[in-house]
Amino acid sequence: MQRYLDQELDDLKDKLLTMGGRAEAAVSEAVKAVVDRDDKLAQQVKDNDDVMDAYEIEIDDLAVHLLSKAPLATDLRFITVAMKISQNLERIGDEATTIARRAQELNQEPPLKILVDLPRLASIALSMLKEALDAFVHRAAEQGAAVIPRDKEVDATNRQFHRELSSYMVENPATITRCLNLMVVSKCLERIADHATNIAEEVVYLYEARDIRHGGGKEPV
Amino acid sequence: MQRYLDQELDDLKDKLLTMGGRAEAAVSEAVKAVVDRDDKLAQQVKDNDDVMDAYEIEIDDLAVHLLSKAPLATDLRFITVAMKISQNLERIGDEATTIARRAQELNQEPPLKILVDLPRLASIALSMLKEALDAFVHRAAEQGAAVIPRDKEVDATNRQFHRELSSYMVENPATITRCLNLMVVSKCLERIADHATNIAEEVVYLYEARDIRHGGGKEPV
Repeated sequence: MQRYLDQELDDLKDKLLTMGGRAEAAVSEAVKAVVDRDDKLAQQVKDNDDVMDAYEIEIDDLAVHLLSKAPLATDLRFITVAMKISQNLERIGDEATTIARRAQELNQEPPLKILVDLPRLASIALSMLKEALDAFVHRAAEQGAAVIPRDKEVDATNRQFHRELSSYMVENPATITRCLNLMVVSKCLERIADHATNIAEEVVYLYEARDIRHGGGKEPV
Repeated sequence: MQRYLDQELDDLKDKLLTMGGRAEAAVSEAVKAVVDRDDKLAQQVKDNDDVMDAYEIEIDDLAVHLLSKAPLATDLRFITVAMKISQNLERIGDEATTIARRAQELNQEPPLKILVDLPRLASIALSMLKEALDAFVHRAAEQGAAVIPRDKEVDATNRQFHRELSSYMVENPATITRCLNLMVVSKCLERIADHATNIAEEVVYLYEARDIRHGGGKEPV
């Protein structure tokens, strides 16, 4: 019975990782659509958002089903954390869709002299997401914990971009609409990093609680 | 045993409602801090955010504890939905904090001629939240379902405010910083309505699934 459950828990994990991979791809492509002014790619990201929603529902259903069979507190924790991770991934998909939408708006106007290094911000946010999911797979609370402080760097970078774009639009009021769109994209990337941080926090909670239990037997099982 | 569990499930519900009440209060006060230019009230909202975080952790712990004792699929669903509602409420608290922060920034500059009716937007978002929580308490899937389409009105109002503020800042570049702060406040209210919509969707999922089960016995218990 427990071994059969382990198999199902692995299936849940695999589904989450597939969803995570799609979330990463959606963000990369959305940012590429901004940088390369690629309307078609932006449209593709928007069209794919349904898939993320479907994953979330599928993972939720599987999780509720497994909850009814899981006897151990550690399994219950694992399953509830999986549900939370899936919710965060679904929202990352939403942010990617917003970026794609803004890419299409930006493409309707002449290109703006590049002011802010969005690909760099995207690369930090994506590496946080990757690390958080890796920590989940490898049961690595420390690796998860290392993600959390990086959120401050992302917040600072987003604020810096915000200031730069504000100054630029004061001097060039004709660029206000475009600058606002870039601010939204930057903010989306900041939120993606927030979601990665949430996932990392869940991983720490999950595996540190497990460690404490194994170490001191404090957790009620 | 089941009656004892019912009592604990009621405790979980009560905690959620208390948290919901605090979330509503935080949003009202944050918007009041913007409108009345009240720095002290804004500070109070920011200081109270810790309470929301503590509630989320407490509800999570109680939920995981109850999951280990709940034998019925309907109870499992109820508990996982409670966890999701609590996460949404915690994020509503975060949005209130952002609004409070922007209120303090706005208070450092001369008042702007009021351009957008933020209290009206706040009132719609808050009534959606209230209805969604009421639907949860009264097991009213229909009442929950009625919340969902209202999100479109909020999105449209936020977009309208965004356009008005954009035009205003093009004509008055000296107001750009203040207009950006008001845009953020409007966007926060739009996100609060999103969270209320998420809660409503969870309520529909929870009680419609229960109805289907009671009607057709389709749900695996």
